Amino acid sequence: MNLLAPRNTWYPLTWSRNVTRALSRHRILGADLVVYRSEAGEPVALDDMCPHRFAPLSMGKLKGDAIECGYHGMTFGRDGRCVRIPGQPTIPPNARVPSYPLQERMGLVWIWPGDPALADPSLIYDLPQFGQAGWHAAEGDALWIDTNYLNLADNLCDPAHVSFVHLSTLGNAASEEIPVEHTFGERGVLVWRWIRDAPAIPLFAKYGNFSGNVDRWHYYDYVAPCIAVIDFGSADAGAIARPEDRGAGLRIFACHFITPVDEHVCIDHWLHVRNFALDDSETDQRLHADFRIAFNEDKEILERIEEVAQARPNAKSIRLAIDAAPQRMRRIVERMVASEGGKRASA
Amino acid sequence: MNLLAPRNTWYPLTWSRNVTRALSRHRILGADLVVYRSEAGEPVALDDMCPHRFAPLSMGKLKGDAIECGYHGMTFGRDGRCVRIPGQPTIPPNARVPSYPLQERMGLVWIWPGDPALADPSLIYDLPQFGQAGWHAAEGDALWIDTNYLNLADNLCDPAHVSFVHLSTLGNAASEEIPVEHTFGERGVLVWRWIRDAPAIPLFAKYGNFSGNVDRWHYYDYVAPCIAVIDFGSADAGAIARPEDRGAGLRIFACHFITPVDEHVCIDHWLHVRNFALDDSETDQRLHADFRIAFNEDKEILERIEEVAQARPNAKSIRLAIDAAPQRMRRIVERMVASEGGKRASA
Amino acid sequence: MNLLAPRNTWYPLTWSRNVTRALSRHRILGADLVVYRSEAGEPVALDDMCPHRFAPLSMGKLKGDAIECGYHGMTFGRDGRCVRIPGQPTIPPNARVPSYPLQERMGLVWIWPGDPALADPSLIYDLPQFGQAGWHAAEGDALWIDTNYLNLADNLCDPAHVSFVHLSTLGNAASEEIPVEHTFGERGVLVWRWIRDAPAIPLFAKYGNFSGNVDRWHYYDYVAPCIAVIDFGSADAGAIARPEDRGAGLRIFACHFITPVDEHVCIDHWLHVRNFALDDSETDQRLHADFRIAFNEDKEILERIEEVAQARPNAKSIRLAIDAAPQRMRRIVERMVASEGGKRASA
Repeated sequence: MNLLAPRNTWYPLTWSRNVTRALSRHRILGADLVVYRSEAGEPVALDDMCPHRFAPLSMGKLKGDAIECGYHGMTFGRDGRCVRIPGQPTIPPNARVPSYPLQERMGLVWIWPGDPALADPSLIYDLPQFGQAGWHAAEGDALWIDTNYLNLADNLCDPAHVSFVHLSTLGNAASEEIPVEHTFGERGVLVWRWIRDAPAIPLFAKYGNFSGNVDRWHYYDYVAPCIAVIDFGSADAGAIARPEDRGAGLRIFACHFITPVDEHVCIDHWLHVRNFALDDSETDQRLHADFRIAFNEDKEILERIEEVAQARPNAKSIRLAIDAAPQRMRRIVERMVASEGGKRASA
Repeated sequence: MNLLAPRNTWYPLTWSRNVTRALSRHRILGADLVVYRSEAGEPVALDDMCPHRFAPLSMGKLKGDAIECGYHGMTFGRDGRCVRIPGQPTIPPNARVPSYPLQERMGLVWIWPGDPALADPSLIYDLPQFGQAGWHAAEGDALWIDTNYLNLADNLCDPAHVSFVHLSTLGNAASEEIPVEHTFGERGVLVWRWIRDAPAIPLFAKYGNFSGNVDRWHYYDYVAPCIAVIDFGSADAGAIARPEDRGAGLRIFACHFITPVDEHVCIDHWLHVRNFALDDSETDQRLHADFRIAFNEDKEILERIEEVAQARPNAKSIRLAIDAAPQRMRRIVERMVASEGGKRASA
Repeated sequence: MNLLAPRNTWYPLTWSRNVTRALSRHRILGADLVVYRSEAGEPVALDDMCPHRFAPLSMGKLKGDAIECGYHGMTFGRDGRCVRIPGQPTIPPNARVPSYPLQERMGLVWIWPGDPALADPSLIYDLPQFGQAGWHAAEGDALWIDTNYLNLADNLCDPAHVSFVHLSTLGNAASEEIPVEHTFGERGVLVWRWIRDAPAIPLFAKYGNFSGNVDRWHYYDYVAPCIAVIDFGSADAGAIARPEDRGAGLRIFACHFITPVDEHVCIDHWLHVRNFALDDSETDQRLHADFRIAFNEDKEILERIEEVAQARPNAKSIRLAIDAAPQRMRRIVERMVASEGGKRASA
């Protein structure tokens, strides 16, 4: 599989709400996993393949914290070791399936596909405002997109597309000609622009009761390889003197936690955190209706691009000024993979 | 792609009626094009891929005679040159997409995929009777067939199949044993046979009020690489002394204008021109109902043959006397491709 | 095609009831055949491809015992030789299609894909009890399974899976820990186990009126490459002193006649023969309802395993004690193929 993805990092796997005492199947980095919750409530992920006849373990039965294969009853503990072979007293030492470190954070189960000895839970992304007073969080969907996860990451390092793709929700024509800026570090890229003294975008016009033009911002905070948090908001034109005071306006963090399913598919697990209409579930639903429109617009474009790119593997793209941040993003991911001894993909 | 097709020639692309101020997508010779009509009413075809991120331009917006990409707003004129990059003052000289010469003739838009400098409109096929007094034309369908366009061309250089495939419409058993004749030139093949003093075929029996047997003819006029006009008709047995007088009988030109979509798919754009029941739309509909039956019989056989041929790439076919004209047709197409420096396919 | 299958052997092709005066298409060992019954009532199978333009002959017409191709009327006798080419007086000597020896036995048509000179009808499998007094036979279904036929053969040399897969019909937990035994010969493997003094399985509990525990047996009689007959039954615990007396209990032969369609698909033609409820069609239906549940459970597992195996072509399996008979089965098939000069597959 030609998937440029580091292994020694935490990836979002699925919503915590999806991990129960029923066996479920999840695919990440091209591998199928069987996932469940132990009797003590901890999430467990094993390779979803019995090493005997290759039956998916997710077709089997959960017995306590162990899985019994549905074909011949081989049984594996939560650490992946075989604990029973019906009709056979001895268990070969190689009778085990891989198990993976899991953690829960921000409503999601996170998985570490690399060396388990390096799986430090403190490395998992955490948004400071999540769960804090004055902020309200609402879980969204798991949006499947038929494209390589890095193409979605491109989109999430790119505020410029909003002016053309999301005209009914997140953007308007006022921002068309405004350049984007960016900075970057070892593990991430920050891309932003301010649109000053312009009409509010449709989404905020519904909530802001703005009397006239607004100043608005988009900060796209990408953390390699699979996290992008969009900090965007609006305030009356001129009301916010310094960028760091933008908490004084209407402000939303749209969080995108991307699962690379395989080379050609990813899942965007999205949620939002906001500083207005706290604990108002109707606002949750109205905002999510807008987000669904917008993110499906991205999905449609990204899937069509994936089709075109697969049909024309040798096509050369033209790079524009707005591509600086996405290109930087790809260099960071390549460097992470290379540092693990993986192959550095060509640009 | 393994598609034997010359490029310096006019191909039918779509019905003129389909080209409007709405962007539409059409595929020919393995390439996807975005097609629209300019404000002045002229058809335009560009490569359907923005060179920036590869989004299909057909997902964008028509602004005057230019297309604005739906992803980041890059805008291309009808000649394919980029005229705007939002947020960026300079436009790189390579920011353009291919555009193609188009012409309209006989109700269709024709495209020249090769060197634009050679695109002489006088080379487009024109049926002399089309639009002439005493003749009536009726547009048919765009029939998609899952086969290489040359397999459809085989069928359209082959009057013999009519006796077996189209018994309810275009043929009957009287012709089974009658050999076909052919001549050929640089750019085409003419294949024909007369069936004399025999029952009328079902299609003509409905219109001719023939008292007894008829003389009937099929002339298959193939013009490489993608045009076949079937001149067929009937008259009372003995009524037509010389073949060139067949205008005295009931006569139909069934025109097939073939679009090679890609290696495995083509579209048969068909229409007919006749010398009876002029301007009678009910006759249009009744004849088209018969043609739909007949051409779908061809489609079914051709698609099954394509499946078999793909499953058995090494199968050797037996050549019969009736294959002389189709073989000649393929030699002509191969010579056209070779004359462009393309690869000559093996027989 | 990577299909390990000997050619000089009889394979089940289809139910006799499916072979009529209508042309039908059947696929075996990757080849498509047109099948029909002659005017005298004998089954005929020819290659389903006209050697002229490769149209499937099954799209043609049966004329007496010959097939007329639906495209140009080439006509082939039941021995595959061309007997007519319309419009052409001479028939080339290579104008023929392969024909195959067929026989009928136990309600099925059997085909010999190899050297016709070796096609000895006495080699066709015959169950001695089939058609004998005291026994009743009932034809089942043709169950398509998307897996290589040898994977189904694995399953049919493997009584152990019954304890885990078929708990509502053919198995229960009492047999989980009981090892299986096997013997083998040049052309087959016999695998069995007895479960003594245990509750009856659900299927027999419905028919046996057993007062308490039963002794029950499963004998899996595999005849390479495509036949497996499961002899299973029950009697009151202790009632049967010697295994060879199991006819004194309730006894069923579940016959599986496997058609290898191609590398990834097979058909399980199944029927059963029993020594109780003779000529009772309601019992036929009730047993078949149970068999359908059970065999669809196998189908589901085998198809999922095929998917996993295709996704992980390099995965190594762990061999257990219960795999001895399936491994022996594969060695026998490999030897048969090697004896024909075919390639011996790796384990």
